[in-house]
Amino acid sequence: MTIRTTAAALALALMGTGAFSQATGDLGLVVERADGALLVVDQSDRASIGRIEGLGDLSHASLVYSPDQRFAYVFGRDGGLTKVDILEQKVVNRVIQGGNSIGGAISDDGRFVAVSNYEPGGVKIFDADTLDLLHDIPAESKTVGLVDIPGTRFVFSLWDKGETWIVDLSEAEPEITKIEGTGTNPYDALVTGDGRTYIAGLFGEDHLTAFDLWQDNPEAQAILDGYSAGREGLPVYKMPHLEGWALAGGEFVLPAVGQHEVLWVDAKTFEQTGKTETHGQPIFAMARPDGRQVWVNFAHPLNDTIQVIDTVTKEIIHEFKPGPGVLHMEFTPRGREVWMSVRDADKIMVYDTQTFEKLREIDARSPSGIFFTARAHKLGL
Amino acid sequence: MTIRTTAAALALALMGTGAFSQATGDLGLVVERADGALLVVDQSDRASIGRIEGLGDLSHASLVYSPDQRFAYVFGRDGGLTKVDILEQKVVNRVIQGGNSIGGAISDDGRFVAVSNYEPGGVKIFDADTLDLLHDIPAESKTVGLVDIPGTRFVFSLWDKGETWIVDLSEAEPEITKIEGTGTNPYDALVTGDGRTYIAGLFGEDHLTAFDLWQDNPEAQAILDGYSAGREGLPVYKMPHLEGWALAGGEFVLPAVGQHEVLWVDAKTFEQTGKTETHGQPIFAMARPDGRQVWVNFAHPLNDTIQVIDTVTKEIIHEFKPGPGVLHMEFTPRGREVWMSVRDADKIMVYDTQTFEKLREIDARSPSGIFFTARAHKLGL
Repeated sequence: MTIRTTAAALALALMGTGAFSQATGDLGLVVERADGALLVVDQSDRASIGRIEGLGDLSHASLVYSPDQRFAYVFGRDGGLTKVDILEQKVVNRVIQGGNSIGGAISDDGRFVAVSNYEPGGVKIFDADTLDLLHDIPAESKTVGLVDIPGTRFVFSLWDKGETWIVDLSEAEPEITKIEGTGTNPYDALVTGDGRTYIAGLFGEDHLTAFDLWQDNPEAQAILDGYSAGREGLPVYKMPHLEGWALAGGEFVLPAVGQHEVLWVDAKTFEQTGKTETHGQPIFAMARPDGRQVWVNFAHPLNDTIQVIDTVTKEIIHEFKPGPGVLHMEFTPRGREVWMSVRDADKIMVYDTQTFEKLREIDARSPSGIFFTARAHKLGL
Repeated sequence: MTIRTTAAALALALMGTGAFSQATGDLGLVVERADGALLVVDQSDRASIGRIEGLGDLSHASLVYSPDQRFAYVFGRDGGLTKVDILEQKVVNRVIQGGNSIGGAISDDGRFVAVSNYEPGGVKIFDADTLDLLHDIPAESKTVGLVDIPGTRFVFSLWDKGETWIVDLSEAEPEITKIEGTGTNPYDALVTGDGRTYIAGLFGEDHLTAFDLWQDNPEAQAILDGYSAGREGLPVYKMPHLEGWALAGGEFVLPAVGQHEVLWVDAKTFEQTGKTETHGQPIFAMARPDGRQVWVNFAHPLNDTIQVIDTVTKEIIHEFKPGPGVLHMEFTPRGREVWMSVRDADKIMVYDTQTFEKLREIDARSPSGIFFTARAHKLGL
């Protein structure tokens, strides 16, 4: 028995209440990449409330939550798939499932966790309870842009083959739909929040490719032709994440490749509706949950700065320097606060998105990704 | 000390784990109107896990959740405002705040709970922790359509005055913006999920009124002129709730007043884009969270039936009879299941939205509203 649970049991016995009880709606995990650890944070208290260690290489790690917001599945760069319990703050299971994992997703019914791999390629499907390997889908290619969509399905793209596959796990054996024509070397992808439109970024083409997954036979459609035309303009320190696309008031806001600007694109037609010049080369353009503001961070060496853009005017309404190495932002679910990892300051900074006031600094060791439990309730993450 | 916490403490001591821990992401409350009680339900287990009693008159009751998903604030028809703890399954505070309450909301920072009243009219603002009355806004009118929007603000409409008011609580004293021209006798209102568009239904006019809250000075705009033209066509057993508007694939789906049909309306222009004939007079048209399906229930005496409409084709793809008195539906957050209150069968029915298979029946006493904790993370509820 650990000191922590003893104390909790004592408190419970002495106070006659469920003092150990902990609601999970306002919790989150922050990746401490250097230490292979996760910091457990509480949004309401604006505090860290624990640390979970022993997760291996967490550079570029991401995670998803179980539907009850109790468990997180962490996808590590070392191929590790780790299941952690955010209530008990401990690792409950860990498997090395591949050589170089780049992300994963959980099915809409919470039963399956899928992981995509660079090495050895393909996608593996695990039982969310036990982490037993259920299905191995080789694909003979690196896989990217793995997302969940409704109907116990996952979608991902094949770097080496230029294809996009849909895996349906609603029956005992996986049913795979292979769509050709994605384009040369998809490097990342996203799905819109309604699970309808899947968009792949291409390393070898001057456009992106979209799929309408609500069609019976989704087909590759080229969008944003010339999107990467300016790629030679400036050194690309970091390819923009497609997950850095924001949906704000009916428009997508996306980092322009190699340029100091974000582009505004009609979410229905994919026609460009505007652009906003920015301080540097944008990495993430993130919409506040209501879409009224877009917060932008930048590539090295300008990654100490944040700009905030108003969605109606498309103008920058605020700029400030949280500190060196702003890697990631996460909004509280209704958008009142934004939490920010400032890696080289070893801090998480918390800001009010209405007043821009700094509300709190929280110590963290080289923090990167911030993941609040509200993600459990969203499609396509 | 109750038996329950003793057992929990013992279990904790014996097992050396936080066995009493309970994640709150998959919980919910179901109103048992006849008994003034709330059934606590667990989505993952598809089960009721407890009952909270002593909440007074719960006919037409609604509730909102604290940001951590631990507490619910229940607005009863008897003017009672009750705070319940979903983890400990008990009432933690209760005040009689008015004579006839019709709904409430919680501010985006979780600090304030607002309640609108028919009797004595006006809106009251309470401290979310203590339920202390902080501000009384008389309004000299019945108030309807109270919703939260970003920036510690609430919006509501005045039945007797035809006005819409915005209350800003970000400073010590409330700042009230009064907008005229809403129209004759607003009876209900909604705000879109992004907090941008507030729409009021009018009892005395043949249109609805919309406000773009992203403008500095929002103005009343008539939309859907002729919307209620058919009101004389059929007896209106129950005015459609505006909360029964669904947003699906860029269109609103709304129950036509007094007709056996739902209307499809472009979410940007408010122009009608189609209609679907239905089994009866629709009460709620509810979109699955991804927007691909719209589920419709009907007014008495056809309230034993559900129809499911496909968003792409606008055609009915499924119809069935869950039982007598289908009052309310709630989707699990990623839309895989729908839970349904079948009042006169004393059951909650759980269905798979992909296969339409019935997954479970749960006993409940005259169940009406179903509220899952994921609502804590949404604007405008």
